[in-house]
Amino acid sequence: MTTTVDARSASGTSTLDLGPARALSCRECGHQIPLAAEFACSECFGPLEVAYDFGRIRREDIEAGPKSIWRYRGLLPVPTDVQSHPNTEPGLTRLVRAERLGAALGLRNLWVKDDTGNPTHSFKDRVVAVALAAARKLGFTVLACPSTGNLANAVAAAAARAGWESVVLIPSSLERAKILTTAVYDGALIAVEGNYDDVNRLATQLAAEHEDWAFVNVNVRPYYAEGSKTLAYEVAEQLGWRLPGQIVVPVASGSQLTKVDKGFRELGELGLVEASPYKVFGAQATGCSPVSSAYKAGTDVVTPVRPDTIARSLAIGAPADGPYVLDTVRRTGGAVEDVTDEEVVAGIRLLARTEGIFAETAGGVTVATAKKLAESGKLDPDAETVLLITGDGLKTLDAVADQVGPRATVPPSAEAVIEALGR
Amino acid sequence: MTTTVDARSASGTSTLDLGPARALSCRECGHQIPLAAEFACSECFGPLEVAYDFGRIRREDIEAGPKSIWRYRGLLPVPTDVQSHPNTEPGLTRLVRAERLGAALGLRNLWVKDDTGNPTHSFKDRVVAVALAAARKLGFTVLACPSTGNLANAVAAAAARAGWESVVLIPSSLERAKILTTAVYDGALIAVEGNYDDVNRLATQLAAEHEDWAFVNVNVRPYYAEGSKTLAYEVAEQLGWRLPGQIVVPVASGSQLTKVDKGFRELGELGLVEASPYKVFGAQATGCSPVSSAYKAGTDVVTPVRPDTIARSLAIGAPADGPYVLDTVRRTGGAVEDVTDEEVVAGIRLLARTEGIFAETAGGVTVATAKKLAESGKLDPDAETVLLITGDGLKTLDAVADQVGPRATVPPSAEAVIEALGR
Ligand SMILES: Cc1ncc(COP(=O)(O)O)c(C=O)c1O
Ligand SMILES: Cc1ncc(COP(=O)(O)O)c(C=O)c1O
Ligand SMILES: [Zn+2]
Ligand SMILES: [Zn+2]
Repeated sequence: MTTTVDARSASGTSTLDLGPARALSCRECGHQIPLAAEFACSECFGPLEVAYDFGRIRREDIEAGPKSIWRYRGLLPVPTDVQSHPNTEPGLTRLVRAERLGAALGLRNLWVKDDTGNPTHSFKDRVVAVALAAARKLGFTVLACPSTGNLANAVAAAAARAGWESVVLIPSSLERAKILTTAVYDGALIAVEGNYDDVNRLATQLAAEHEDWAFVNVNVRPYYAEGSKTLAYEVAEQLGWRLPGQIVVPVASGSQLTKVDKGFRELGELGLVEASPYKVFGAQATGCSPVSSAYKAGTDVVTPVRPDTIARSLAIGAPADGPYVLDTVRRTGGAVEDVTDEEVVAGIRLLARTEGIFAETAGGVTVATAKKLAESGKLDPDAETVLLITGDGLKTLDAVADQVGPRATVPPSAEAVIEALGR
Repeated sequence: MTTTVDARSASGTSTLDLGPARALSCRECGHQIPLAAEFACSECFGPLEVAYDFGRIRREDIEAGPKSIWRYRGLLPVPTDVQSHPNTEPGLTRLVRAERLGAALGLRNLWVKDDTGNPTHSFKDRVVAVALAAARKLGFTVLACPSTGNLANAVAAAAARAGWESVVLIPSSLERAKILTTAVYDGALIAVEGNYDDVNRLATQLAAEHEDWAFVNVNVRPYYAEGSKTLAYEVAEQLGWRLPGQIVVPVASGSQLTKVDKGFRELGELGLVEASPYKVFGAQATGCSPVSSAYKAGTDVVTPVRPDTIARSLAIGAPADGPYVLDTVRRTGGAVEDVTDEEVVAGIRLLARTEGIFAETAGGVTVATAKKLAESGKLDPDAETVLLITGDGLKTLDAVADQVGPRATVPPSAEAVIEALGR
């Protein structure tokens, strides 16, 4: 495992009960420090990641666990008694066999992981629930974040449920639905005149100045990020404890993609699944595709861009984990691809029409990218393939509003209905 | 059980595999007919209900079943192999302990069943999934409904996933979100100039004229309605196989409330839980409260009203199951209460602020009614209480839009944020 504990540095490091978590370890130089609210290595400024000592983990224990991400608590940096404090209980969302979408894409063995079933309808509930649990142990009492929208919803909701204060910073241009759905939880929601990267910089500054604020994706990021591993665990368990052959993951900061890979690897290393090979594919909107551009250019360097796409939840122009996304897709034999806003909308509609799942723009990016990768032969049509649908169409209605609507508006008569139906 | 099979009339009635379902039985006169697409008794025009022969059902088998309503397939009118055809897999949504909401309401033992986690984010996915499974066996190929919105979403999505045609009729005044979220699935969506009761009448006429259309809540209603029992099953299982002492259920047609009661009774009769007493409470918006009015007037007769409330999903002025709601609440020692639109919005905000759950107006009705019932002493503050939150706030954003929003919009500077927070 990349992040096992160096027994020496970790011995006695921590009386903190964060379950199997033992230390924070630098992703670049391997330097380890005790579990704390740190996110950058003091030696090399590399990002810190949680290092574990898992012990023995059995399928049966997981299967007998709660019907939420807490069934995997033995694999997460959360206290053993994580369920004794109010949290949002996300996870164990549907993995549906997608024959009709598969037929449309030319993929004969396709699954869709529908993460719109989470409490605030995006995968962000997973990472926030883990961040809240860790933040409580680390002594915080305010939950905060900069957000492109989904994270704002998830942080405000989780804080409300826990009885914590929240401070949520969003670009003032955000979709109305994402603003209202954050504001309704009654935390401190601040709209900032600027784009996400401006808001993110501001959050980093505020996190440094306010040590009692847990910015989930800044100073608590190492814990937060681990929450995305649960997508991998669930996919594998729901496939019957097996890894898929290929998976397509939307990329904003790139955290989710790298953690899905980490989750698959851990399952293999722990013997919970056969460590069979799998390919990880990244999906971006062309209007914000710094990682896809770097992938195509064959470089390791991700050059920041100024986002311009309807896929606002993926509009991170300077993705923190971009280089690790490149590592992951290259190591596993995957790729990163990007699609236009028109293709995004077509992707949303295709998924809705074939599988009855209404995704937000990020889901449209995933579906449209899968289509493009299938057409170019990069996705194997026969391999078991999983698409991660990570957010909900109700939050980005404008994307489809001018394309769909009633077939007709008629007076209340049976003849008028039949005529409108052309029957 | 109210609806066991009369062995004589049911013998050899049906070669149709609808699991434990054996016949349709008239709720008024008990007359039984073979399983078919009928909804009214040929003898007395009373509503038909599904009659079962359950056999032995064990907790362990349910617990080992799928993580959806299909774990209860042995208690539903669906084929044994229900999972072999594409359907939406709703259910097994969160039951969360609601201490903070409980403190606000003066209820010391409160739970919230959060049915916003379903595929299209309302409990309607449950009834539609059952209707689709039964309709397939009954030989239909078109899924149809008149709807106040949530049902439209659920029918269009389920039909899309199954590869069926759908015909969905809605009042043209419906919320934008509910229109778009139906239209996106690309079935035949027809807006009708009229209110729900007009649309419903139209559907009844169309159902009679088009025998190949399964109007889920008209000609397939006996099967459809049974889907609401799964709310009762899940609540009991999630409480650790125990019935709650009191439950508050929103009332539109009244079907859900009567089926929740039926579900609890079945569990007791089958020995899956101890048959402990429970009280069922109904919740309506004052602007459409025909059942509450009848309850308060002490009559059995529900007089139709013309709805005028923001709780549009509950705006059924002529509720088909109104009299059975009165029976149920009176038999169990519950009550029906109604709340103003202002209280509905306050209820939505209270639930969001205390538990991080964003409900639609119907959920606001449930919370506000629970508050009123607690204040008047009708809800026992110490009894185990469950509130059914059956729909999602994202579909009725207008209800809160003028009351919530960002605390401030500021330039991208830390000082501006701190000032806006008043810290
Ligand atoms: C719906 C949705 N999907 C995917 C992502 C990508 O997440 P990451 O930043 O981990 O790459 C986001 C990020 O906000 C998101 O909102
Ligand atoms: C969200 C929601 N809750 C409750 C109900 C009430 O259902 P019933 O007609 O079974 O009383 C409806 C009906 O449309 C609904 O949409
Ligand atoms: Zn380092
Ligand atoms: Zn009869």
